[in-house]
Amino acid sequence: MAVDVPGLVEQARQGRPRAVARLISLVEGASPQLREVMAALAPLTGNAYVVGLTGSPGVGKSTSTSALVTAYRKAGRRVGVLAVDPSSPFSGGALLGDRVRMSEHASDPGVYIRSMATRGHLGGLAWAAPQAIRVLDAAGCDVVLVETVGVGQSEVEIASQADTSVVLLAPGMGDGIQAAKAGILEIGDVYVVNKADRDGADATARELNHMLGLGEARKPGDWRPPIVKTVAARGEGVDEVVEALEKHRAWMEERGVLAERRRARAAREVETIAVTALRERIGDLHGDRRLEALAERITGGTLDPYAAADELVAGLTGE
Amino acid sequence: MAVDVPGLVEQARQGRPRAVARLISLVEGASPQLREVMAALAPLTGNAYVVGLTGSPGVGKSTSTSALVTAYRKAGRRVGVLAVDPSSPFSGGALLGDRVRMSEHASDPGVYIRSMATRGHLGGLAWAAPQAIRVLDAAGCDVVLVETVGVGQSEVEIASQADTSVVLLAPGMGDGIQAAKAGILEIGDVYVVNKADRDGADATARELNHMLGLGEARKPGDWRPPIVKTVAARGEGVDEVVEALEKHRAWMEERGVLAERRRARAAREVETIAVTALRERIGDLHGDRRLEALAERITGGTLDPYAAADELVAGLTGE
Repeated sequence: MAVDVPGLVEQARQGRPRAVARLISLVEGASPQLREVMAALAPLTGNAYVVGLTGSPGVGKSTSTSALVTAYRKAGRRVGVLAVDPSSPFSGGALLGDRVRMSEHASDPGVYIRSMATRGHLGGLAWAAPQAIRVLDAAGCDVVLVETVGVGQSEVEIASQADTSVVLLAPGMGDGIQAAKAGILEIGDVYVVNKADRDGADATARELNHMLGLGEARKPGDWRPPIVKTVAARGEGVDEVVEALEKHRAWMEERGVLAERRRARAAREVETIAVTALRERIGDLHGDRRLEALAERITGGTLDPYAAADELVAGLTGE
Repeated sequence: MAVDVPGLVEQARQGRPRAVARLISLVEGASPQLREVMAALAPLTGNAYVVGLTGSPGVGKSTSTSALVTAYRKAGRRVGVLAVDPSSPFSGGALLGDRVRMSEHASDPGVYIRSMATRGHLGGLAWAAPQAIRVLDAAGCDVVLVETVGVGQSEVEIASQADTSVVLLAPGMGDGIQAAKAGILEIGDVYVVNKADRDGADATARELNHMLGLGEARKPGDWRPPIVKTVAARGEGVDEVVEALEKHRAWMEERGVLAERRRARAAREVETIAVTALRERIGDLHGDRRLEALAERITGGTLDPYAAADELVAGLTGE
């Protein structure tokens, strides 16, 4: 049965969590009404401030996200949380995550929490996460916190979808090096050294300061990423993180950087959707006699795969 | 300067390692002569038997690969080894791997060893590995061993490019469960329990036998994956592995499965190259006024990303 999309969007605007959940499921799942949903959301988007949180396992990402929710709620903001797990092929993991994570905010109507897993689908997250952000944005969230679970290439991708990226670290030998290896060290607009009550917090902050070259001179007006120390479990330093985020947002707005980042994000989004669509068209050829005939010629040694791909692309693009 | 491709291919056929290396570099690196190389290789391919080796870190993949090389060399076969590291963004890692790995075979002209890293390029391996296999095949290797370093989705992809997949395990609690989680348990045509001199080897084999349902009845003629116990470091059980591989190969040849697998592999190869080509076309639009204009309309809320992607695809495919 066709969903009443305008009605659902209206309910989501009123903050009904079930309507938000339904919309995210619609945009996640390549529903036949996906385009209708996206078109209905478009005029309602562009208000939410999207903050990405990344960091190695064990730095306290969940706790930090929860503490930020508390801080933003105190300030009267509506908050969306998207916890994305690029590494998990298990959709059940996402559901479990919903329940155990941030239970203190579960009954707050001003907070919407959603977990996403990629379900073994490489690139699936790059495709689905921006759409879920759009739903939360259109539903009236002032802030959307995108927290990644796990590490790796996908983290960097997710971070690139945020207005402001927060990189979390915790005291411990070589943590900065780990982050550097994961490629997440350079992407921070704000750095947080969590668990700052532990030994080595100052050393981690110093090491980070050194690795990032924060002591070096910058062009006037350039953003100098701050390093904030927190004990998220006790809420310590969290207001300072919010302050740093607001400063970064103001800095981006003043210089047109925010609009520029969002345009770049939109362009990437379009590219990803277009590539997915083209990939699907090729996928539709599975079992197609044409692709089979090409494969037969390749295994027979009379055609190489590049020449075959050229034929396939030419057939698709009508060249 | 343009490379003398026919000359290079001829030298590779004569077993000159530098020519093989040069050809792999050409197919890896999207050289302008890539298509010429691929066309020259096509009629020379289809002879090599491609064996994939996967397994969790610590099971002794490198040692097992090396032991298999020794066994195949004893039988007078020419062997190519492709060690692929889907997780490493560092090309230096691949080079290092070349040197420390299987040094005993380094001076044997009948063995060609090559490491590949993805260099942070998701999907890069799915694209480059089959081409490198083609070079080794055309260069006259009778057997190509494809060993994956690291774990995850990419392993399964690589294994799907082999004629026969070997899944390695080692004794240890929950190792089978680890393999199951990584999604590599179902892909084996041959299973090897390495380090079989350690406690628990029989238990691991039994657990594996149970998890795979190997005790259950199969249709007559169906392949029943054997479980072989080895101590690769001492060469024990390696001849049995080769025997199992040859049996699987013979089984596949008798039933037309080998030709079928190779056709499916060729079809996937063509798809991957075609998708990459289409992606590049879209990528070429970076900084293009058209994509920028679409992004501008999205951030302005007058267009949604799906409608934008439709416009982009229509522009590409001339619809």
